[in-house]
Amino acid sequence: MKYPNGKPYKKSEEVNKAEKGHRSLLSAANRGMSLEEDINLSNDFYRETGRALINKRPTPINIVKVDYSHGARITDAYFEKQSTTDYNGVYKGRYIDFEAKNTKSTTSFPLSNISEHQIVHLKNVIKHGGIAFFVISFQIQNEVYLLDAKFVIEFYEHGKRKSIPYEVFKESGLLIKQDYSPRLHYLDAVDQLYFK
Amino acid sequence: MKYPNGKPYKKSEEVNKAEKGHRSLLSAANRGMSLEEDINLSNDFYRETGRALINKRPTPINIVKVDYSHGARITDAYFEKQSTTDYNGVYKGRYIDFEAKNTKSTTSFPLSNISEHQIVHLKNVIKHGGIAFFVISFQIQNEVYLLDAKFVIEFYEHGKRKSIPYEVFKESGLLIKQDYSPRLHYLDAVDQLYFK
Repeated sequence: MKYPNGKPYKKSEEVNKAEKGHRSLLSAANRGMSLEEDINLSNDFYRETGRALINKRPTPINIVKVDYSHGARITDAYFEKQSTTDYNGVYKGRYIDFEAKNTKSTTSFPLSNISEHQIVHLKNVIKHGGIAFFVISFQIQNEVYLLDAKFVIEFYEHGKRKSIPYEVFKESGLLIKQDYSPRLHYLDAVDQLYFK
Repeated sequence: MKYPNGKPYKKSEEVNKAEKGHRSLLSAANRGMSLEEDINLSNDFYRETGRALINKRPTPINIVKVDYSHGARITDAYFEKQSTTDYNGVYKGRYIDFEAKNTKSTTSFPLSNISEHQIVHLKNVIKHGGIAFFVISFQIQNEVYLLDAKFVIEFYEHGKRKSIPYEVFKESGLLIKQDYSPRLHYLDAVDQLYFK
C-alpha cells in the first residue's frame, strides 16, 4: 500500500499501539500521551480552576557552551541527574512533592527507576511537614496509583526485593480516576489520604 | 606596570570592585559571589542542618537537538523564560516560594526585572496559602532585603512608577543578616514575618 506521493505506507507507531489492544476506550483517546503529559495537563487544569498550584521542575541541564551570535543559543550541554523529584507545589497551604513513573511490568514496580537522591529528598520533605508521594502508572493494566512516599522509602531501604509488588499498590495505594479534565484526578486521592 | 611575561598588568574587576569601597570586611570576603550563589549556599546549609528544604528550580531550556553518538549531548537548545520563580520548598510544613534579584540602583528596585508570569505565579502562591516573597540585593549599599510579595504585586499592578523605592524596603521589608554560614540568614526574616 502506498501514499499518493508514491512513498510506501507505514503504519504509525500510534496506530500500531492502538491496534495492540490492552486499551480501554478512554486510554485509546489518550494514546500517544505519556504519564508526564497527563500530569502536566492535570496541573494546568488544577491551576486554571484555582484548585492547586503544582508545577513540573525543569530538567536540570549543565550548559557547556553558548553561542551569542544569533541571540543566546546553547550549542553544547548535557543532562544532569535530577536530585529532587519532578513535581512540587502548594495545595491547601501544604507543600506537595511527588515523583511520577511508568512501568510496563504487570507484577511489580522496579525500584531501579528511583535514585537514592530522590529517596533522601522525599525523606526530607516528610521531615519538614510536606506531603510526599509517588504516582505510578502500570501501563499494561492502564491503572495509575498514588502511593505515599513512606512505602517506597521502606521498600527502598529495607525491602528484600528490588521492586514493590503490584499488590502493595492495590492494598495501600489509591487508584487515581482517569478522565478528560483533569486527565488524572490525583488531588482527589490526595484529599482522601492527607486531608481527612 | 607589566607581568613578568610582558603582558600589561590589568587590575582585575574583583580588585577594582574591592577598591571602590562601599564594602564591609564581610562583603570583601564575599566578592565575586553572586546573590544566587549566596542563596544556594544558604539553602545547602539549611538543608544540611535540617532547618528547611528549599531548592533552586533549574533554568527551563527548550531542547532542539540531541546528539546520541557519544552519550546524550545537547547540541542545539535555547533558554525559555522562567514562568515561575527561582526558589521554592518547604519550611515548618508551609510552602515557601520566592524570587531573588539584584539591583545596582541605590534609590529603587526597577520592576522591569520582574515578569508578569512571576506576578501571576506569586498571586497564586498566596491564594493557595503559601508564603511568597522577594529577596532583593541593593549591591551598592550591600544590603539584602526580604519583602513580602504583596508589596511587589501592589507596586507592579497599581504603582505609578516602574520601580519600588528603596524606602519601601527599609520600612516594610526586613534586612537579612549576612554571615558565613549561612551566607544569608533569610529564614530568620521568614520566622519574624510569617511565624510570629
